[in-house]
Amino acid sequence: MAAATLAPVARVRTGESVLSRAVRIFDAFTPDERELAVSEIARRSDLHVATASRLIAELVSHGLLERGPDRQVRVGVRMWELAARASTTRSLRDAAMPYLEDLHAVVGHHVQLGVLDGDDVIFLERLSARDAVVNFSRIAGRLPLHISSSGLVLLAHGPAELRERVLAGPLDRYTRNTITTPERLRAALSEVHRQGFALLPGHVHEDATGIAVPVRDGLQQVVAALSVIVPNDERAATQVPALLAAARGVSRSLSAGAGRC
Amino acid sequence: MAAATLAPVARVRTGESVLSRAVRIFDAFTPDERELAVSEIARRSDLHVATASRLIAELVSHGLLERGPDRQVRVGVRMWELAARASTTRSLRDAAMPYLEDLHAVVGHHVQLGVLDGDDVIFLERLSARDAVVNFSRIAGRLPLHISSSGLVLLAHGPAELRERVLAGPLDRYTRNTITTPERLRAALSEVHRQGFALLPGHVHEDATGIAVPVRDGLQQVVAALSVIVPNDERAATQVPALLAAARGVSRSLSAGAGRC
Repeated sequence: MAAATLAPVARVRTGESVLSRAVRIFDAFTPDERELAVSEIARRSDLHVATASRLIAELVSHGLLERGPDRQVRVGVRMWELAARASTTRSLRDAAMPYLEDLHAVVGHHVQLGVLDGDDVIFLERLSARDAVVNFSRIAGRLPLHISSSGLVLLAHGPAELRERVLAGPLDRYTRNTITTPERLRAALSEVHRQGFALLPGHVHEDATGIAVPVRDGLQQVVAALSVIVPNDERAATQVPALLAAARGVSRSLSAGAGRC
Repeated sequence: MAAATLAPVARVRTGESVLSRAVRIFDAFTPDERELAVSEIARRSDLHVATASRLIAELVSHGLLERGPDRQVRVGVRMWELAARASTTRSLRDAAMPYLEDLHAVVGHHVQLGVLDGDDVIFLERLSARDAVVNFSRIAGRLPLHISSSGLVLLAHGPAELRERVLAGPLDRYTRNTITTPERLRAALSEVHRQGFALLPGHVHEDATGIAVPVRDGLQQVVAALSVIVPNDERAATQVPALLAAARGVSRSLSAGAGRC
């Protein structure tokens, strides 16, 4: 009985629940909702308003959250600084950036760099033209592996246990072209290995084609996917050589700069 | 007496000290030291190894920190995701990016975008050529306001109380050209207003000249500084028109896209 009443205190002592709650608070924000009222944050993070309010005040005091002029709350510059300053994806992004720029100048539309994180692809960088075709990915945004060309490249070269887990489903449908059966997914992954890229016409959005190629580090490990999103028409496949060349450039930079920032 | 023994428990209950410690742990990492041993993190963040170890394990369980194959600890992709996904500086950075690319293609060397945070300029973005002149700024890096051209632009257009605080010193010296007296700083700030840009030859490093111009939002408020770092020679000033034109472009994008992501 004594143990039962002590347990929650012990959890707070280790910081476990405080950090969990802080993560839930940050999770309340989205790219489209960058400013939220305290009551809305409390609702989304499933916290009592008083608890959320106290924790938000503490996060504001550290600069991890900021309050706007209208008392709305937003993610603070200090939070971004702590996350970005020593980010290990920074060297990858820095090595890739000149090649992304060149590719963007040639291809137009969207050029992006994605890495595996958990069961998703997360996009570290994206360059977009103003008049580009639709694209659902965003910087720091995620997509399920089975729907995106970047996801397919990362899955094809990723750990076997991840591949088996994704093949076991569920494989949600986004458009009528989305891969939703393990048989089609297995065939698509073989195709990535065979041809060296993934080309998915209309799998995320009917009007757009995603094309992705693997980026290898100095040890020939696939560490990222370089991709373009172009209109879903017969010219899409003509972009493959430029993508493959750019990926080689990034790999060469990664090999040359291994261990440097 | 009872109150004295209860106080620390109350602090832990509110999460105050857990978050403070977590911030100190993230502060242990630097752009040059992205992977650290637990004992080194404990030392830098002034925590007992057992305390640091427990908190690091908790941060790892949330993906905010990651462990490398050699048990070294690094900042996690999830931390970057939480910070970047809904960052309010993202819209500024996105609006500026095409103009930074154009400027970088024309000027070469380093092109960067900085904003005011506390008493520093913090750099949101930087494009660098491989053979560029030396530059001490980094993405998510900070510089004191009085030494950098971006800092001077932001200080000239910033809150009066910030200006008085910086003028009250101390003004640390970086090179023999650095502004270290309030009189010179006041004159330099007037010059920024008079000529519309800051040009500082050799103030951060003797071989480099920083040139910065203000970026205004739709309400004509200065929200950022756009800058180039070029060699410290007689041609530096020729870059000013390209910078001014690019800053106007960013401002126009910010006005057009106000409220959008």
